[in-house]
Amino acid sequence: MTTQQLHEQILQKKSFLCVGLDPDLSKIPAHLLETEDPIFEFNKAIIDATHDLTVGYKPNTAFFEAYGIKGWMSLQKTINYINENYPDIFTIADAKRGDIGNTSSMYAKAFFEDLNFDSVTVAPYMGKDSVEPFLAFENKHTIMLALTSNEGAFDFQTLNTNGTELYKQVLETSKTWKNSQNLMYVVGATKAEYFADIRKIVPDSFLLVPGIGAQGGSLSEVCKYGMNDKIGLLVNSARAIIYASKGTDFAEKAREEALKVQQEMAEIIDSKF
Amino acid sequence: MTTQQLHEQILQKKSFLCVGLDPDLSKIPAHLLETEDPIFEFNKAIIDATHDLTVGYKPNTAFFEAYGIKGWMSLQKTINYINENYPDIFTIADAKRGDIGNTSSMYAKAFFEDLNFDSVTVAPYMGKDSVEPFLAFENKHTIMLALTSNEGAFDFQTLNTNGTELYKQVLETSKTWKNSQNLMYVVGATKAEYFADIRKIVPDSFLLVPGIGAQGGSLSEVCKYGMNDKIGLLVNSARAIIYASKGTDFAEKAREEALKVQQEMAEIIDSKF
Repeated sequence: MTTQQLHEQILQKKSFLCVGLDPDLSKIPAHLLETEDPIFEFNKAIIDATHDLTVGYKPNTAFFEAYGIKGWMSLQKTINYINENYPDIFTIADAKRGDIGNTSSMYAKAFFEDLNFDSVTVAPYMGKDSVEPFLAFENKHTIMLALTSNEGAFDFQTLNTNGTELYKQVLETSKTWKNSQNLMYVVGATKAEYFADIRKIVPDSFLLVPGIGAQGGSLSEVCKYGMNDKIGLLVNSARAIIYASKGTDFAEKAREEALKVQQEMAEIIDSKF
Repeated sequence: MTTQQLHEQILQKKSFLCVGLDPDLSKIPAHLLETEDPIFEFNKAIIDATHDLTVGYKPNTAFFEAYGIKGWMSLQKTINYINENYPDIFTIADAKRGDIGNTSSMYAKAFFEDLNFDSVTVAPYMGKDSVEPFLAFENKHTIMLALTSNEGAFDFQTLNTNGTELYKQVLETSKTWKNSQNLMYVVGATKAEYFADIRKIVPDSFLLVPGIGAQGGSLSEVCKYGMNDKIGLLVNSARAIIYASKGTDFAEKAREEALKVQQEMAEIIDSKF
């Protein structure tokens, strides 16, 4: 998928919502636990109930790997289900990978070829040759951590490095990498005021914004500072949507929560474009 | 496994070698490709041929994930094979994981519980709450990236932050985290002179040292600056050992290469202890 296609989908759906798929067997409705693949059944129901309100799905690989081979099979079924039934939707493997070059190439193959995701999240600590193997894939997108939404973001990401915060240095440096046009960035919603500075460095890039919902960020604040003239935002919400109910109505309730966010997004889009 | 047990194994085998298992179907001997699970058969042969010369095995998860479900099954079989046949050997899931707290908890479950590795590698960028969930596991070890062996290490890890390099700040800060006694660190062998400074910050921690062999680092230099009075080093070699031959003699040749390294290590241990 190209960023242009993603942009068109956002305008058409009036949504820049991405639903995070973090399936936890201790949190999903009890009646699903009797099925053969509870994780997939849960994801499938959430996807079917929300696909017209969201432009992206972001399975978090940890929540599949925790269940071993069975979990990896659920991940494969989930991405296949999205690609077969809703091929226009942007898919993100939230995997936070990154290693030396030949290893990153294998991770890129895993997520871009074997699983056929549109994008994958990566960590920047190991630098250029740990990220460029991902960037080499045409029409695939590499979403690099810049400023995350957790408390630990302030341990290293905001350290002063040569007069600027580390995460800004990460953004600046990454722009010099080969095929950097395939980069997007993770920027946490819990620090909306940071978006203004970030937009000075990466005005055109898509930003994946976690931290709305359960993590407490404000959508209007994020849009105020982070939106560009192509929208340029993918706002992720996971727990607030997928765990809106633990009952048999979980998919319906997930839709209600997704609809609330989408309606807020539609108002913002209508007021700006 | 405790670090004391690891130390005892090192003295007994006169080896602090860790063999990296990076099985690449394009590099493993052709005759194995006809077997049902070439990756596992390759690993098994390497393990059987080297287990008395090495104290650790480090499967690199990327090289399994690239082959999807089949690859994940090979990973499971590989770790099970080591745990069942050579239970004294220290196992490292080289996964470079790290995410917000509840996600890192799931990764920790994946590698410490589901797969039953002794340790896992993690990336520090997201800070304290992305690493502490791993540290909560008793007698399990979390090996955090400090200074890596690749070219991109100089993009961010060596940036000056408040008067010191970022990787030193990472080491210092990590010592304040809960259960930090369960931390080990990745320090690349390609920069042996850095070990002296690193040992001032983490004198007692085990350091996992990649970059010997194919990546070009010198064992004697690493030991000169990096060894502590409990040895404190795990030196990893992957390609130089596992791909020593592409023929039917690959396991035998792998043993020969491992033996060379082990003998060099034995000399160093004998001269120092």
